[in-house]
Amino acid sequence: MKKIRYALLLLAALPFLVNAQSIHQDNILYGAAYYHEYMPYERLDEDVRMMKEAGISVVRVGESTWSLFEPRDGEFEFAWMDRIIDKMHEAGIKVILGTPTYSIPAWLWHKHPEILIDYRNGREASYGIRQNMNITSPTFLFYSERIIRKMMEHYASHPGIIGFQVDNETEARGVNNYDFHVSFVNHLKKKYKTTENLNKIWGLNYWGMTIDSWEEVPPRDGVTNTGYKLEWARFNRKAVADFLTWQSEIVAEYKRDDQFVMHCFMPSVQNIDQIASASKMDIMAMNVYHDQQDGLTGNEIAFAGDYFRSVKGSNYLVTETNAQTIGWTSKTQQPPYPGQMRQNVYAHIGSGANMIEYWHWHSIHYGQEIYWKGVLSHDLQPNRAYAEVSKTAHELQKFGTKLVNLKKKNDVAILFSHDSNDALNFMPFNGSGSDWEESTNNAYRSQLVAQFHKVLYQNNIGVDFIFPEQLNLEKYKLVIIPSLYVASDELLGKITDYVKNGGHVIMQFKSGFSDENSMV
Amino acid sequence: MKKIRYALLLLAALPFLVNAQSIHQDNILYGAAYYHEYMPYERLDEDVRMMKEAGISVVRVGESTWSLFEPRDGEFEFAWMDRIIDKMHEAGIKVILGTPTYSIPAWLWHKHPEILIDYRNGREASYGIRQNMNITSPTFLFYSERIIRKMMEHYASHPGIIGFQVDNETEARGVNNYDFHVSFVNHLKKKYKTTENLNKIWGLNYWGMTIDSWEEVPPRDGVTNTGYKLEWARFNRKAVADFLTWQSEIVAEYKRDDQFVMHCFMPSVQNIDQIASASKMDIMAMNVYHDQQDGLTGNEIAFAGDYFRSVKGSNYLVTETNAQTIGWTSKTQQPPYPGQMRQNVYAHIGSGANMIEYWHWHSIHYGQEIYWKGVLSHDLQPNRAYAEVSKTAHELQKFGTKLVNLKKKNDVAILFSHDSNDALNFMPFNGSGSDWEESTNNAYRSQLVAQFHKVLYQNNIGVDFIFPEQLNLEKYKLVIIPSLYVASDELLGKITDYVKNGGHVIMQFKSGFSDENSMV
Amino acid sequence: MKKIRYALLLLAALPFLVNAQSIHQDNILYGAAYYHEYMPYERLDEDVRMMKEAGISVVRVGESTWSLFEPRDGEFEFAWMDRIIDKMHEAGIKVILGTPTYSIPAWLWHKHPEILIDYRNGREASYGIRQNMNITSPTFLFYSERIIRKMMEHYASHPGIIGFQVDNETEARGVNNYDFHVSFVNHLKKKYKTTENLNKIWGLNYWGMTIDSWEEVPPRDGVTNTGYKLEWARFNRKAVADFLTWQSEIVAEYKRDDQFVMHCFMPSVQNIDQIASASKMDIMAMNVYHDQQDGLTGNEIAFAGDYFRSVKGSNYLVTETNAQTIGWTSKTQQPPYPGQMRQNVYAHIGSGANMIEYWHWHSIHYGQEIYWKGVLSHDLQPNRAYAEVSKTAHELQKFGTKLVNLKKKNDVAILFSHDSNDALNFMPFNGSGSDWEESTNNAYRSQLVAQFHKVLYQNNIGVDFIFPEQLNLEKYKLVIIPSLYVASDELLGKITDYVKNGGHVIMQFKSGFSDENSMV
Repeated sequence: MKKIRYALLLLAALPFLVNAQSIHQDNILYGAAYYHEYMPYERLDEDVRMMKEAGISVVRVGESTWSLFEPRDGEFEFAWMDRIIDKMHEAGIKVILGTPTYSIPAWLWHKHPEILIDYRNGREASYGIRQNMNITSPTFLFYSERIIRKMMEHYASHPGIIGFQVDNETEARGVNNYDFHVSFVNHLKKKYKTTENLNKIWGLNYWGMTIDSWEEVPPRDGVTNTGYKLEWARFNRKAVADFLTWQSEIVAEYKRDDQFVMHCFMPSVQNIDQIASASKMDIMAMNVYHDQQDGLTGNEIAFAGDYFRSVKGSNYLVTETNAQTIGWTSKTQQPPYPGQMRQNVYAHIGSGANMIEYWHWHSIHYGQEIYWKGVLSHDLQPNRAYAEVSKTAHELQKFGTKLVNLKKKNDVAILFSHDSNDALNFMPFNGSGSDWEESTNNAYRSQLVAQFHKVLYQNNIGVDFIFPEQLNLEKYKLVIIPSLYVASDELLGKITDYVKNGGHVIMQFKSGFSDENSMV
Repeated sequence: MKKIRYALLLLAALPFLVNAQSIHQDNILYGAAYYHEYMPYERLDEDVRMMKEAGISVVRVGESTWSLFEPRDGEFEFAWMDRIIDKMHEAGIKVILGTPTYSIPAWLWHKHPEILIDYRNGREASYGIRQNMNITSPTFLFYSERIIRKMMEHYASHPGIIGFQVDNETEARGVNNYDFHVSFVNHLKKKYKTTENLNKIWGLNYWGMTIDSWEEVPPRDGVTNTGYKLEWARFNRKAVADFLTWQSEIVAEYKRDDQFVMHCFMPSVQNIDQIASASKMDIMAMNVYHDQQDGLTGNEIAFAGDYFRSVKGSNYLVTETNAQTIGWTSKTQQPPYPGQMRQNVYAHIGSGANMIEYWHWHSIHYGQEIYWKGVLSHDLQPNRAYAEVSKTAHELQKFGTKLVNLKKKNDVAILFSHDSNDALNFMPFNGSGSDWEESTNNAYRSQLVAQFHKVLYQNNIGVDFIFPEQLNLEKYKLVIIPSLYVASDELLGKITDYVKNGGHVIMQFKSGFSDENSMV
Repeated sequence: MKKIRYALLLLAALPFLVNAQSIHQDNILYGAAYYHEYMPYERLDEDVRMMKEAGISVVRVGESTWSLFEPRDGEFEFAWMDRIIDKMHEAGIKVILGTPTYSIPAWLWHKHPEILIDYRNGREASYGIRQNMNITSPTFLFYSERIIRKMMEHYASHPGIIGFQVDNETEARGVNNYDFHVSFVNHLKKKYKTTENLNKIWGLNYWGMTIDSWEEVPPRDGVTNTGYKLEWARFNRKAVADFLTWQSEIVAEYKRDDQFVMHCFMPSVQNIDQIASASKMDIMAMNVYHDQQDGLTGNEIAFAGDYFRSVKGSNYLVTETNAQTIGWTSKTQQPPYPGQMRQNVYAHIGSGANMIEYWHWHSIHYGQEIYWKGVLSHDLQPNRAYAEVSKTAHELQKFGTKLVNLKKKNDVAILFSHDSNDALNFMPFNGSGSDWEESTNNAYRSQLVAQFHKVLYQNNIGVDFIFPEQLNLEKYKLVIIPSLYVASDELLGKITDYVKNGGHVIMQFKSGFSDENSMV
């Protein structure tokens, strides 16, 4: 009884939430990523039994193992996954299936080493890790499209599958391959028309670096011009969005109307245009990791939730979050205190989540992530985490229908500018004295924006994010504008109009410092 | 009246200064570097008006924008600069013109990427930043010579031009290109005659690395032999001197007798032979940057002044110094307190400066140096700095004739050894426990020498620098010798003779530790 | 008299030592490495005279100067070394001769640059330093074999030579050359038979990196799989052992029965299989460096002695140890207090050493090691160190026959696992929060194992080391098992049996965490 009261209490603490509907969902989904293929021995039936007993309602599968779907170039194997999805379906556990493109198989690297990333200044990616390919490479896209279509042909009709994830934690990864540079120059031609225009807009007179023909645009390597760097960052963000949109559209050709397509976004990653990336998706989803024990503040959960809820203006899924310990070293591997896993579930729901999935069900016995422990430990036996998941799952079975599709109505918004985040990296305001090269610490995101959000969170003031790309100022009584270093006249005009019309703005230092080309 | 008294007071505080004459100059020159071509809109007339009103007497132009003088290979455009120089001349503002070779145009990089620097261990320079070329490359020298001659043909006769600057803040930059290595080996052949001799002088028996033919001299990359490294450092210093001398001689073919040629040296840079570099120059010039507010000690100004005054034994120009803030991050961007800009001007004069030029007039609206703010801020309106410059300029118009060409007569000298600076980098006495590779912290220059100078400065004892290459010990009552790690027997003999003849010497630890080949 | 009493006292303090015999040695050998070829002038006779006077009984020569034995490809010169060995022999000073393969001559690099190391991720070794070659390169082995055979043909019969050292401070050095990778893949084929087996044992399903043919095994560069990394580390340790064994066998073809072959191992180096490396050697030898003055604890001496005594279970030689200062910077260059050099000699003997040789006799006047000072300083005159060496040498002449071939019998052993050392580097338990890449800090060796040893040392409890590869648990009452992260079932079974049979075990956290393939 006490537990139920607690859940109701949490519900009462969310005054701005009202029931609503985005894609059809009549209860909170609760589950875990599931990689039976990683297990050293067969235990599918046992896992299904334990999940069912615990009350788990959803698993996410398939996004990590291209080499099992296609062990050899052009040879496809689905039986190993069919039985997993079939058994889940039989047990009433819903399945989300991922496209496996974030980690290429060895045969693809071996046949086409040129799709690996060439980083700046001569460094090159190598095989043996995930996310090491140029996602704009036509070769990579060719093989990606083939496996996605094969999978969709095979799986779209499966009644157990409720949705699809495209790729995994995608972001711009410093691709500096020759063909990517050529694409960038083509983009410049299209956007700026003439080199004269580019010389002027970027201030290439500085240090005498004007260009007279498009071949004279240098590769990204050692470029210092902030206009170039900002446009390059935008182009990278767009490249990610194009890639995710391309995948989403392929999936959409096959999926049923009752199935969704989504991607698991990362709250800490800013080198991606989330709005454009999600344009062809049905719902937002995100992976949230945070400290536990005394380090758990709830703030990371709220920040991520507020951010991604705002991108599409609706409920979202949590595709991954801490089960037991996370981290690479013992120093940071803190298992949650009793009750923290459950507390986090309600915190997610309070921000608008319609699903909470742990990463992941098992703990893995090899590879880099053996300490990113799942609900089960390496012994794969019931444990404290399993018991807490089970308790929470049963609560959700009872009350989840009342908690699903909650809507927030906030009076305060934070204006988030990817351009300002990038431009402040190029001219870091908080570097050491001799800093010359750009920073990668995203001080805009992780210090300025985070500070504002934290204060609001601590004072229990609900907040949305708004973006220059979708600027609905009028909805809010107060708009907080962290250092809006890059701002077009048009954007500044809109803010001025908002204030003239009675809106309130808190604007931080260096706002309006430079125009959309990073020119002061 | 109070201001005038203050200037006279300063004058009185310089007891060792006596009026004298090097190149003809009848008043202190006072002004700024001027880059109208960096401005986003036309304002030449307004700038000239403001300068004239402020009392500014000199501007430096042209050293940064090769791509405007030669926007396409072999096509030259001077009109844009002609009008600047003409208008300055009409307004009575003198002009110093720089050769623009420190930053190559994009078309030159695009046509000849091989002139970019190959650094040690496979790293390569890339385009998009200044000072990234091998200054010994014949290709680079070919294009440099062409633009310099074109500019001199066009400008030498202009009555408004009082002098020329060759290149900008030149130094050895870690060039490790193949042709540079071959030049080095040729230099070794000429200097040491036989490989046997080299084996002996450098101690190549150590770890069995003797060479039997000149092709066996390894490239600089991973060399550990300290004799090799010292000779390589000397060869680099010489390469810079050769380059600056080569430019100075070309300029001298064209310039009038009343025009000078100079280069803006950097006080903190030691990988350059200043004496040899200046051999064909008419006057020394330097760029001095320092802390402001409570961090302003006057010491950096005095060190730089004492050093470069000593190189040619006469007055010098300050081609660049802080206007408003400098630095890459907000942490170090301190505008001077009211009065500090003026104070610094008299400090420079007190050390023997005949010109003080700010870097620079405007603040730039793009590029890496937007926070290295000029006399004017980004709004380009009169401000506190402009007012202080104006006040100081008008003082100089009244009293400058009495302050120009001041001479110092000091009884104390510091012996400065570039070889010791380098050799102590190779065997750092103050590194961390596991240091193996050479240091680049110039501990000799920035700790040992600087300490001695600071104590003298704080005790108001005037000091000159002397160099092993021009060793006029006899002029001084006391010679301070910071760790003279590298010393030939000849040098030690001269010091001994000096002491025998009654001279006083303070000699620091590790002096005389090794011979001129870094052999103990 | 007092000194003699002190030596006897030390002797009394070693209760576990009993006289025994490994290779014939009737007194402690005491001397120094000797590099007359490094001296800027002739002083062989003077050195021999001083050594003789001091009572020095052994020198080690020849391991550093291949380019003097073979100044040009295929031209051999021995006369320079003949006179050194002859004069030593005449003076009754024994000689150990080293093969000079750890530092290749310039002509060999110039002819075969491909034998230099290709490191991971595109970095390449360069010439100008020692130990920069791929020791598995057939080209390197060809030239190494030729010089070794030439030297052995020439020197094996010399009556003054008591033994041979092969190579110097050998270890795995990050070789990633193409041919080395192919060897590794061949090794995998032989060991694991099928790719299916490898996929399973290494868990290559993780991130979908299964391989379908052997060409798909990626090079080591960016590999993250811990099973791969552990096997690669083992393969590297084996490569070093193969190389040292190969050299030992060549030497053994020529050497007399009364001559030994050995190698100078480094206590701090773990990327080498010492047991396999020493399999064809007659005696263990090691180089031990440690702090002096107040930093001298004796612990490093004891650790190194305990370790290498345990590898072959018999007495060993100290081929190198501190004479005067060591280190690269002044901060760490501490000359020993009076008496410390002598104290260290007896400490070595107390651990089982049969020889103590300083590195080295002279101090060198050039190169990287001018501050690694020998018994003599750069002036090469008698000094405090020489006097202390002389005193100690004369003591050993009197008492050494009683101190030679001492045997230890310990009740406690520490189990040392190279696999665990490596695997804990790959999954560092003590890294910073964001550590992803492997560490190189050998926390297992330098923190966990060292802590246990230190406590035993401080409590005066003698200890041996045992290894999974030669596991004589039964000899000990107590076996301490620092974090045995990698352990086969067979090994765990043996430990269990030992405890069942009455043995005592202290086992640290994470022991038995993963199997022999680093799978949890």
